[in-house]
Amino acid sequence: MVKKAVILAGGMGSRLRERTKDHPKGFIKIDNLSIVEQSILKLIEAGIETIIIGTGYLSEQYDQLSLKYPQIQCVRNNDYEHTGSMYTLCNLKNHVSEDFLLLESDLIYEKKALGILINHKERDVILASGFTHSNDEVFIETDENNLLVNMSKNSGELKDLHSELTGITKLSIETFKVMCDFAESIFPENKQLDYETALVGISSQRNIYVHKLQDFVWCEIDNEDHLLRAEKYIYPMITLKDKNFPPVKRNVLLNPGPATTTDTVKYAQIVPDICPREEEFGAVMETITGELTRLVANPDNYSCVLFGGSGTAAVESTLSSVIGNDAVLIINNGAYGKRMCQIAKTYNLNYIEYNSSSYEAIDLLSLEQTIQHCSKKISHLCVVHNETTTGLLNDINAIGGLCKKHQIQLIVDAMSSFAAIPIDMDVMNISYLVASSNKNLQAMAGVSFVIARTEDLDNTEHIPARNFYLHLYSQYKYFLETKQMRFTPPVQTLYALKQAIVELNIEGIKRRYERYSKAWEVLINGITQLGLTYLVQKEHQSKIITAIVEPSIETYKFEEMHDYFYRKGYTIYPGKPGIEDTFRIANIGDITCKDMELFITMLENYLRSIGYLPERNEKNGFSKA
Amino acid sequence: MVKKAVILAGGMGSRLRERTKDHPKGFIKIDNLSIVEQSILKLIEAGIETIIIGTGYLSEQYDQLSLKYPQIQCVRNNDYEHTGSMYTLCNLKNHVSEDFLLLESDLIYEKKALGILINHKERDVILASGFTHSNDEVFIETDENNLLVNMSKNSGELKDLHSELTGITKLSIETFKVMCDFAESIFPENKQLDYETALVGISSQRNIYVHKLQDFVWCEIDNEDHLLRAEKYIYPMITLKDKNFPPVKRNVLLNPGPATTTDTVKYAQIVPDICPREEEFGAVMETITGELTRLVANPDNYSCVLFGGSGTAAVESTLSSVIGNDAVLIINNGAYGKRMCQIAKTYNLNYIEYNSSSYEAIDLLSLEQTIQHCSKKISHLCVVHNETTTGLLNDINAIGGLCKKHQIQLIVDAMSSFAAIPIDMDVMNISYLVASSNKNLQAMAGVSFVIARTEDLDNTEHIPARNFYLHLYSQYKYFLETKQMRFTPPVQTLYALKQAIVELNIEGIKRRYERYSKAWEVLINGITQLGLTYLVQKEHQSKIITAIVEPSIETYKFEEMHDYFYRKGYTIYPGKPGIEDTFRIANIGDITCKDMELFITMLENYLRSIGYLPERNEKNGFSKA
Repeated sequence: MVKKAVILAGGMGSRLRERTKDHPKGFIKIDNLSIVEQSILKLIEAGIETIIIGTGYLSEQYDQLSLKYPQIQCVRNNDYEHTGSMYTLCNLKNHVSEDFLLLESDLIYEKKALGILINHKERDVILASGFTHSNDEVFIETDENNLLVNMSKNSGELKDLHSELTGITKLSIETFKVMCDFAESIFPENKQLDYETALVGISSQRNIYVHKLQDFVWCEIDNEDHLLRAEKYIYPMITLKDKNFPPVKRNVLLNPGPATTTDTVKYAQIVPDICPREEEFGAVMETITGELTRLVANPDNYSCVLFGGSGTAAVESTLSSVIGNDAVLIINNGAYGKRMCQIAKTYNLNYIEYNSSSYEAIDLLSLEQTIQHCSKKISHLCVVHNETTTGLLNDINAIGGLCKKHQIQLIVDAMSSFAAIPIDMDVMNISYLVASSNKNLQAMAGVSFVIARTEDLDNTEHIPARNFYLHLYSQYKYFLETKQMRFTPPVQTLYALKQAIVELNIEGIKRRYERYSKAWEVLINGITQLGLTYLVQKEHQSKIITAIVEPSIETYKFEEMHDYFYRKGYTIYPGKPGIEDTFRIANIGDITCKDMELFITMLENYLRSIGYLPERNEKNGFSKA
Repeated sequence: MVKKAVILAGGMGSRLRERTKDHPKGFIKIDNLSIVEQSILKLIEAGIETIIIGTGYLSEQYDQLSLKYPQIQCVRNNDYEHTGSMYTLCNLKNHVSEDFLLLESDLIYEKKALGILINHKERDVILASGFTHSNDEVFIETDENNLLVNMSKNSGELKDLHSELTGITKLSIETFKVMCDFAESIFPENKQLDYETALVGISSQRNIYVHKLQDFVWCEIDNEDHLLRAEKYIYPMITLKDKNFPPVKRNVLLNPGPATTTDTVKYAQIVPDICPREEEFGAVMETITGELTRLVANPDNYSCVLFGGSGTAAVESTLSSVIGNDAVLIINNGAYGKRMCQIAKTYNLNYIEYNSSSYEAIDLLSLEQTIQHCSKKISHLCVVHNETTTGLLNDINAIGGLCKKHQIQLIVDAMSSFAAIPIDMDVMNISYLVASSNKNLQAMAGVSFVIARTEDLDNTEHIPARNFYLHLYSQYKYFLETKQMRFTPPVQTLYALKQAIVELNIEGIKRRYERYSKAWEVLINGITQLGLTYLVQKEHQSKIITAIVEPSIETYKFEEMHDYFYRKGYTIYPGKPGIEDTFRIANIGDITCKDMELFITMLENYLRSIGYLPERNEKNGFSKA
């Protein structure tokens, strides 16, 4: 059992100049506790009895810390200004006589890392993660046995990217000695040697196992960007994961939201009771509105208004609150365009319904002609971004251009595109964007929101209110003044949303859409191979939901197919009535293309079971319909 | 370490006649598994290696079960028809030679019970609970050392009610022998002896410790009522508690909702992801609407309509959806009456505002005169049940009588009375009752609902819709036809609400209101002792929220007092502006009078710190202002 740890803390942290003027890097605080102390507490909790800190720059501060923790021994690298991390490590040679954990001082990480290394059957183990895209990563190349071959910050130097170095390693005393020998042969020419280089240098002599934890959450804090990311996203995520809640049965939801969520988002609902009129909760909502806005616009010019309710509530809020006596043109090319017409009709708005095919692109010329030839003044145009009826993606950018040309304010129902398909409200000329918490944001249902160009929203103040709970300007103004929602908000759902935004920011919208797109490719290729077709031409699809034409065989019944998948933990979705007979598969939420591959396999089995595909010939494997 | 358990399973379960015709009582299934098998699995999980079942009636079924579990040994009481449980127990004398757990076969219980008994330092321990009010309870009397003195189903026979027998006991082998000796001296006259009577009979010779777990969840299934209660409330509660989630920091919310919730309600939000259009989720919502209705009315004649949104959303839904062209009279005696006027005004309803004092009872004569002398036909009257502005309780029963007399439909905003103050919609002549999840229901915010007399609701079909998301009839009809909410519901909030209803039903509305009332008494007496006064006369108070007149001293600042309490985990609430200067204390949620006692102590300290009360004289203790 490993009982010893070494923390490398000699460096000057020069890329965090202001923050490391008076403190070594490890003394940067997050949540009121220095990151090195957080690490020390985790090491002690994991059963580590001795922590040797290789100090250098401002070493007296570590000496001071050692008074608080009897476990700490500090060993100073007196030449820290001119040497690298391997020199600091070698300097500990006389203090280490057994296997130990090796950590950098500027890390925050999930505590489970330590248990995994301590209990690992191999004695030399590098803990590696999936790709964090955090900048400044060290990539790892391994052989087929997961043994270290090479590491580099330059991914181009490696044959194959296996994983990313986390800076948490277990070393056997023998390997440590070999590393020191290696280093001492280099030092006469180069004392700046990194311990990573030394590890690579001896990897042909010693087997260094690379243990990859795909979803491991950690970060190194080397610069201001890292620190911001650490505070806002990584630290909250680690805090939640360190609570080590039991896993929840995983269902794969292939309906168009609510989508599959992570367990961390689920457990983010578990918070001490709080009155939502407290400042503490106001800060939570302010974080949420700021972050949601930032995803699509500059918060200096755009505002986010939260509602307790479904997405439709926020759509209704916008339509009923921002349109005065002039006309609104509503593009109806699916169920959600139609719903906007219904809302406009209910409120007796002066609306014009522009009908377009639910599976073909909008004819922009015809649309412009409608605008030009309209006898009424059109103040607003409404369109659905991704029409989940069919999966048709409307060209918001082009429509925004049209609106600009004709001085029309654009209202976009981005319910099922927000947080996946990149949107820039300013570039796309969108005045109001409406979405909800439970689709690509991968949070819980119960919160919807409007992001509005603040100037346009301010101008709605004098439009007489048509309703109360959903009145957009009142909701906006009240929050602006009080940091409270006008009416009791769904507290726990908002905490989950906050966590979901953290996870979205860690992944990034671009990469989330790439992940979705890969799952969609698997879907499209899979159904094509099985002889099924989809409704919308590939280039007009949102890659988020696909309407698949139902198999033309009498034995097919959607409900039976649904139940077949449901029993296996997969939820599929019926088609919208009124268009061609389809069923629908969404590929959003916390799913991967592996889930979709499994889905395709199950679909194949189902289609065989109803005779749509021939019985499988066991000898030849897959046989095409 | 106890490694043996005995289950008494000889009886005929004659009070469950139909269900026990073909099976012993222990074979009744809940959630597809017999209750005795559930018990056996918990015993094995707790480390019990041998389970001796004292069988009798239909003993062959237990013999069959023993084939499945090698831990089981069955010993038949051949005279089970004419003997009691103690005879069955004595019959095992030759099979027991060490300390053991003793259980009845018809129990469901939290598994933690077993660990507590097994690890208890005493060798003879009765596990007892708080009072379950389940009918057919066995009450326990103890001495001051928690040692058994007496037990009886008739509470009148006992000097003092300590706790309730659960039917789970640990017995030392010595005590068991003494019990058998005792029993054998009785058997010649009475073979029907219960083991409970034997325990009492030997309690003067042997110390039997009674270990009381106040919140222990369990039940015995002796009759149909027990079974129904077990299936609907106790079993779901046990399932959740057995998951053994880590406790959440407890805050005491003394604001008028969202209120303090139990950890089980919090964790009920943690469910596998589900698409809310699934039948499985429809069943959850149907349970909720049925149970909510049953709390105040007969579901044959009343319907519950759920909304995702705050309580105000449901109030707006009702006002905007059920009133046609005739007039609505709105009683405004506080902020929530005023809010109904604002909603009516927004929708241009034909409304009459009836103003009344916010801290004195409504003058019913004057109200009736207003109705009688009104030039317009009044179709509806709106009133707030408990006006949280001041804590004034309006006399709904009398107002309902007036409405009946004048053929007016009554709309009651019962936001802060529902699930605490008993309501009978039929008796009180209420057509529409509006409430939300996050007050006395002790669930999470995000769900509100309308309970309506179905006949009246049906008649609103032809009133033109004034809005979309909140249109009551559409929401009602859609759910009736599809068992889905019209728009994506707040899934996890609804699961929490379902659990909160389970817990409400276990406690009962009457006892919940008693608990609240006791906390309120502590509050009222406490503040009076501290020299503070309240706004509303005692007899008109709801006993749910109290407006307390602020201390008249310059050093008092509400915000400072708020922060003083907030740091200690207590949340207090400001007064409503526009009425006399008050602050407000609600006594709802998962709190007890102990919490309120602590609050009063803290309030005293605070008032001393600002000089409103004199410094405490340490020698004399409490000193009055």
